[in-house]
Amino acid sequence: MTSEQCDLILSGKYLLPDNKQENVLLDAAVAVTGDTIMAIGSKDDILARHTARTRIHTDHGLIMPGLINTHTHAPMAAFRGLADDLPLMTWLEKHIFPVETRWTPEMIYQSSLLSLAEMIKSGTTSFCDMYLFSKEVARATEKSGMRAWIGEVLYDFPSPCYGELENGFAYMEELFQHYADHPLISITTDPHAVYTCSPELLSRLGQTAADHNSLYIIHLAENQAEIDTCRERFSCSPVEHLDKLGLLGEKTLAAHCVMVTDAEIELLAERKVKVSHCQESNMKLASGTAPVVKMLNAGVLVSIGTDGAASNNDVDMFGEMNTVAKVHKAARMDPTAMTAEQTLSAATLGGAEALLADKTCGTLAVGKKADLIVLDMNQPHLTPLYNIPSHLVYAARGADVLHSVVNGQLLMENRTLLTLDEAEILDTMRSIAQTISRYGKD
Amino acid sequence: MTSEQCDLILSGKYLLPDNKQENVLLDAAVAVTGDTIMAIGSKDDILARHTARTRIHTDHGLIMPGLINTHTHAPMAAFRGLADDLPLMTWLEKHIFPVETRWTPEMIYQSSLLSLAEMIKSGTTSFCDMYLFSKEVARATEKSGMRAWIGEVLYDFPSPCYGELENGFAYMEELFQHYADHPLISITTDPHAVYTCSPELLSRLGQTAADHNSLYIIHLAENQAEIDTCRERFSCSPVEHLDKLGLLGEKTLAAHCVMVTDAEIELLAERKVKVSHCQESNMKLASGTAPVVKMLNAGVLVSIGTDGAASNNDVDMFGEMNTVAKVHKAARMDPTAMTAEQTLSAATLGGAEALLADKTCGTLAVGKKADLIVLDMNQPHLTPLYNIPSHLVYAARGADVLHSVVNGQLLMENRTLLTLDEAEILDTMRSIAQTISRYGKD
Repeated sequence: MTSEQCDLILSGKYLLPDNKQENVLLDAAVAVTGDTIMAIGSKDDILARHTARTRIHTDHGLIMPGLINTHTHAPMAAFRGLADDLPLMTWLEKHIFPVETRWTPEMIYQSSLLSLAEMIKSGTTSFCDMYLFSKEVARATEKSGMRAWIGEVLYDFPSPCYGELENGFAYMEELFQHYADHPLISITTDPHAVYTCSPELLSRLGQTAADHNSLYIIHLAENQAEIDTCRERFSCSPVEHLDKLGLLGEKTLAAHCVMVTDAEIELLAERKVKVSHCQESNMKLASGTAPVVKMLNAGVLVSIGTDGAASNNDVDMFGEMNTVAKVHKAARMDPTAMTAEQTLSAATLGGAEALLADKTCGTLAVGKKADLIVLDMNQPHLTPLYNIPSHLVYAARGADVLHSVVNGQLLMENRTLLTLDEAEILDTMRSIAQTISRYGKD
Repeated sequence: MTSEQCDLILSGKYLLPDNKQENVLLDAAVAVTGDTIMAIGSKDDILARHTARTRIHTDHGLIMPGLINTHTHAPMAAFRGLADDLPLMTWLEKHIFPVETRWTPEMIYQSSLLSLAEMIKSGTTSFCDMYLFSKEVARATEKSGMRAWIGEVLYDFPSPCYGELENGFAYMEELFQHYADHPLISITTDPHAVYTCSPELLSRLGQTAADHNSLYIIHLAENQAEIDTCRERFSCSPVEHLDKLGLLGEKTLAAHCVMVTDAEIELLAERKVKVSHCQESNMKLASGTAPVVKMLNAGVLVSIGTDGAASNNDVDMFGEMNTVAKVHKAARMDPTAMTAEQTLSAATLGGAEALLADKTCGTLAVGKKADLIVLDMNQPHLTPLYNIPSHLVYAARGADVLHSVVNGQLLMENRTLLTLDEAEILDTMRSIAQTISRYGKD
């Protein structure tokens, strides 16, 4: 038997190809050529059939799909812990907006690098980001090697990034053109919300999304204030408002959906709208608890997002899974609600489906892109090990991730980042934080 | 100036003596002699005045009080992830009880070591444990060097540990005698709950606690089923039941208190009962959300517990703080509820107060016992750093803890356990888990 040459073989004690304990392989390996998974199987088999330029074996390692974070504002990592435990408008008006008006592209770039470093170190391999100066977010993402969906947020008022609204469309156009054929970065269309975008802007961006075949990403029904404002202006709820405009569809990814009625859940399901559930942020800002179990029962695709680090205050998807699985049990007073396997699915394949990328990533399978992570299961808090999805949701945390691979490229090995200079990023951020602190005092 | 000899000097970039950002010291150190903190101050000052046998400097280190976990069942670490997402009675009757009846003292000892290793590695320095075979829990704790309050749980039916109830009192007596003068271990009196202990047993244990001047620790008002059972049997709520028996007092530590009315909260405050709030376990078992903000407003002392790893599924107090601070914001729809500083206090000084040990530990102060931890703040998820309590509650996790000191003894340095053999503990637990898995299939 001749041995097939590949680029990378990762092996470990366990391999979880998806979200199901019954599919766990023991003493397993995955072989990668270029950006693609070529083989998955027993370690002995894979090593007998393949030779690889790079081989990484982890004794107590668990190989699994990388986590997919479907709602982030990466540069807001710069605001982590800047102000907490405040009423929403005080937080925004006194602390966040005064700094956001003085962002420079370089600050955005550096803050994005920080968030990317944190994401890779906590097991995320793909994310969907909506923020200002998104060219800089994309530039940082290119450097990191992560897979991302990135959009420039548009709203009715001038932006710190592009100025007058009309320039925003030009800015988006440049992004679409620049990343038209990028293997890792997809550009999205991102109206901020129904209370910050006129119906005309929402519709025009709907056309932009259609023209570019892009996702249409919006904050939707995040809190009661949004509902009240929308009802006052348009005599309907935010979900109804978007539906009247014909903007609920299978390429719509709605972040939050905390305040949705049963009828609206049915509508979201019917329109095949995807939801990004951001539980920790919704709790920290006291927005409420999205009816996720109802959504899942109605057939709505629910994925998981951390939201920005300013309202979380981290982007650790393991921590987010822990919260999601537990909160909905208490909310429903039902310990069987939101199982570990359901939650893990929302953070992996669910994320891929939300981004219409389930043929690309979200599970480990031959022919899919190699987006995977390896965890060190040889730790007190992960011992004993009866059920892997249970541990991933209820006990694991970002720091358990040893290696990360995106699109076949090794981004982290033994917790050392390979595409980013962690020490330099942290030093730069400490200096940027001093500037931000001064802004806050002006 | 002559230099004073001490045993240990820890220094770092930050020192947080309590829960308040305004009290943070920069470039600070703490000097320890024997079991006691001798000096706290600027690093330069401390080093000028003291020489030490052992010096540990951490460039980006944060020195802070060790966390205090006021409700654990340490040996249940052996059941971590054994069965999740099940109705309570299915979980107990099909998965937990069948194994508990076959516990051996050695299994308890080894499982306790696992939990101790996890606690030290995630920043806990003191804990309060209620379980079976508590002599073995105490023996493991002695080996670890942790500070602990440990009790043997008693209830009306025979125990896998001591058999008939009467033997339980003899077992407790031996514990009280053996640990009468122990510097780190205090024995507590632990009736299981009002639905598993007759009024006579509850009262007799009240007398035991009084005789030994011990804490009286009980699960109280954990869920609706407990309320219903108590009302059916005694025509009153669990809190009222204990009060009628004269068992609510300043040495009573009540775990859970999920289902308590406003009037009962007033009563708990008046009686100076201490509460151990176990939010993650309460969510995972779908018990509900304790009205913690109301309790704090009423003047009830609220501390934090993880409960056992079978219903959490970890004992990471950093994760627990994150959940506690966020859940109560959403529960109250108020982003200013349960601030980072309040939450951090509940996990440190609040724990010490719950255990009537606030003169011993809970803050860093000259003359107190040296129970402290050092975190590595030079990490993406802890950068930038505007406010330390915010990071500790909303972004830090157990894996950020580098060093741990209890009673002046170093228990962990650079994440290596010094009193416990981590590799051996993990290997032993994997073997015990195989036995437990077999029991589950019988």
